[in-house]
Amino acid sequence: MTETNHRKPTAEVISIGDEMTSGARLDTNAQWLSRRLAELGVEVLFHTTVCDSMDCNVDVFRTAVRRVDVVVCTGGLGPTRDDLTRDALAEASGKVLEFRQQAMDKIERLFATRQRPMSQRNRLQAMFPKGSTTIPNPQGTAPGIDQTFDQGDETTCRVFALPGVPAEMKPMFDQTVAPAIAMMTGGGSVIRSLVMKFFGTGESAMEERLGEMISRDRIPRVGITVSAATLSLRITASSDSALRCDQMIAETRDEIMSRVGDLYFGEGEDFEQYHAIDQLLRGRKESLVVVELGYAAPLGDWFATLGVTPTYRGGISLATSGQLMRLTSAASFDASLDEIKSRFDADWLLLVDPYPAIEEADRSGMPTADVSIVVVDPTGQRHTTSTHIGGHPEILQPRIAKSAMAWLRTWL
Amino acid sequence: MTETNHRKPTAEVISIGDEMTSGARLDTNAQWLSRRLAELGVEVLFHTTVCDSMDCNVDVFRTAVRRVDVVVCTGGLGPTRDDLTRDALAEASGKVLEFRQQAMDKIERLFATRQRPMSQRNRLQAMFPKGSTTIPNPQGTAPGIDQTFDQGDETTCRVFALPGVPAEMKPMFDQTVAPAIAMMTGGGSVIRSLVMKFFGTGESAMEERLGEMISRDRIPRVGITVSAATLSLRITASSDSALRCDQMIAETRDEIMSRVGDLYFGEGEDFEQYHAIDQLLRGRKESLVVVELGYAAPLGDWFATLGVTPTYRGGISLATSGQLMRLTSAASFDASLDEIKSRFDADWLLLVDPYPAIEEADRSGMPTADVSIVVVDPTGQRHTTSTHIGGHPEILQPRIAKSAMAWLRTWL
Repeated sequence: MTETNHRKPTAEVISIGDEMTSGARLDTNAQWLSRRLAELGVEVLFHTTVCDSMDCNVDVFRTAVRRVDVVVCTGGLGPTRDDLTRDALAEASGKVLEFRQQAMDKIERLFATRQRPMSQRNRLQAMFPKGSTTIPNPQGTAPGIDQTFDQGDETTCRVFALPGVPAEMKPMFDQTVAPAIAMMTGGGSVIRSLVMKFFGTGESAMEERLGEMISRDRIPRVGITVSAATLSLRITASSDSALRCDQMIAETRDEIMSRVGDLYFGEGEDFEQYHAIDQLLRGRKESLVVVELGYAAPLGDWFATLGVTPTYRGGISLATSGQLMRLTSAASFDASLDEIKSRFDADWLLLVDPYPAIEEADRSGMPTADVSIVVVDPTGQRHTTSTHIGGHPEILQPRIAKSAMAWLRTWL
Repeated sequence: MTETNHRKPTAEVISIGDEMTSGARLDTNAQWLSRRLAELGVEVLFHTTVCDSMDCNVDVFRTAVRRVDVVVCTGGLGPTRDDLTRDALAEASGKVLEFRQQAMDKIERLFATRQRPMSQRNRLQAMFPKGSTTIPNPQGTAPGIDQTFDQGDETTCRVFALPGVPAEMKPMFDQTVAPAIAMMTGGGSVIRSLVMKFFGTGESAMEERLGEMISRDRIPRVGITVSAATLSLRITASSDSALRCDQMIAETRDEIMSRVGDLYFGEGEDFEQYHAIDQLLRGRKESLVVVELGYAAPLGDWFATLGVTPTYRGGISLATSGQLMRLTSAASFDASLDEIKSRFDADWLLLVDPYPAIEEADRSGMPTADVSIVVVDPTGQRHTTSTHIGGHPEILQPRIAKSAMAWLRTWL
């Protein structure tokens, strides 16, 4: 683990657009950028969202460049009258805008490739504040801007302006901005990362078990995020060589596994427990049916995303176990599970009994529920766990569903 | 429709907390407040999110009060060392903090009621900048702060500081801040609102049909929001009497219905099409089963939230129509639908065939799909519609599910 002597840079993330200040759209770019910047060792002190007004934009840039080392802004780079970022940057820095033929050629080629007519206004997208650098945009027309503001007192602030469309913004950040920032923090220009997924504990318990591994100063940095009770650890390494990055990540991965490997279920940003179950069942050449009782049925929706796979036979959701028995005309609840398993031609059955009602009155509190989770295995044996489960009402049902998948995984 | 002579006030929304600047948590308060402020006729020019540092907090307050008329900030009012809002307000305004026994009494009563020990640090929550007003918090310990900043040039900026917990922040805004702001905009201190729900068109087509009704200057104001293809119109009226508010809302509601009544399905922030279907089926004393094929099954999850109702019999999800036929051992696909309807003892069946696969490669584009939606009515007759449907991958499946519910509603 190499330490560096560089002071930790500070940052502000700026999002531009009336659709966010009016509340019509939620700003998710700022969160994504903040996580990435933290992983690069940059401390984000401010987010600012600003409406599409020239005065407000200039004010926001002037305020930002005097209080942080790095600014990443998104939005306002399109060809319409509302798109003010390049003018605001020019105004705030006192630089003129200059036309760049090379950028124009790229924009024209893109329109030709897509066989769409180019508007005269698109020429604006080839205008840049004097002294700034162009950030390539592989996915769209608007190039980004990399401009250093001189603060007069020997300090500078580097502003990276990117488009607001996430599909364009994200690759531009990863390909150009992140390496530039890694150079500033002394980490080297190659950046690699790995996302590991975990389920079965809370965020603070996870942090406790990881200890100093999630320290902001660790190299490589390990970032923790939680989404509806699923924990993600993202290892980000920067170095001068990809090989060295991969070595650093592998070492850190091993250390993480030695501490919290019992909760690990897979790798990749979008990898969920149902993907892990799909893989486990493929290995065994076996299949599953899911039965959900009560006031939710998220597993049916999640497993459906697997689509046509030999491992998933389908899902069924009903309000009560009585309805399940009437549906199957079986003599007992156990027999009705057996009948469902056989009708769906599945080796395994996973039952959640039941998802609780979430009363309106509880929405501000923390409801809890007693839930039975039953796995019926290929031999017909039942494995039942009863869990008293609580949590914020918005994530209580997903948490129950995820606990059910974790229970199934213990038998696979 | 009464017009007023007041200039439209401008606002900044400030969110305080490391958990947001680090990207660990998404800020949803700013969006909620921006919508409410817009409905009150206030123009939000800036959102700012700031980390838990005293210098940064003071900087943010000083910047905000010089550039807008109203500031609403959330967070930083708790009893811990990270909670800096009251100190930052005092510092930014040059006022001292004073202890208020009345606020302390309330905090002590709350702890006594909840039978929890009170920490000495909770005394901090009874400290207020001199000259400010206390905003009552019916749900929690931290009162809010209503402080007017004098800008020296005969202009003032009014700052409302509220807790970050949405369950406390929202009622405090609605009960105290909104009436105060309505007084500033000349609308009267009583505020009423009504949310109407619509499905079946896009946001811009809806805006076109509503025309000047959604103008920012209209009284009462009509705000439009979209969530996964469901459109909400919120009518907000302020006046000196509740009766007058209700009259204004009723008139506006009639005008909206005359323009877009064909897309209307109900009222209330959380009212969805499955609630409308539940009501329609209750009226007919009939029931429904839902069958979802393909790569999603959101209807099963949504209808399950109705819980134990005589109208909903359950849901089933499978990858393909072939699997449905194998499951029922019926001779034809139509016969398998009849068998499902009869097995679930349902009068109506709603089939989505199929939800498409959303390829990873399409995630940045706009996938489209051909989907059949079939309603089988109580007489066994089939009503089929085929739709070529597209949209952002994140909302394509919900949009298909909502189109299916809209199709079912046309037969009820």
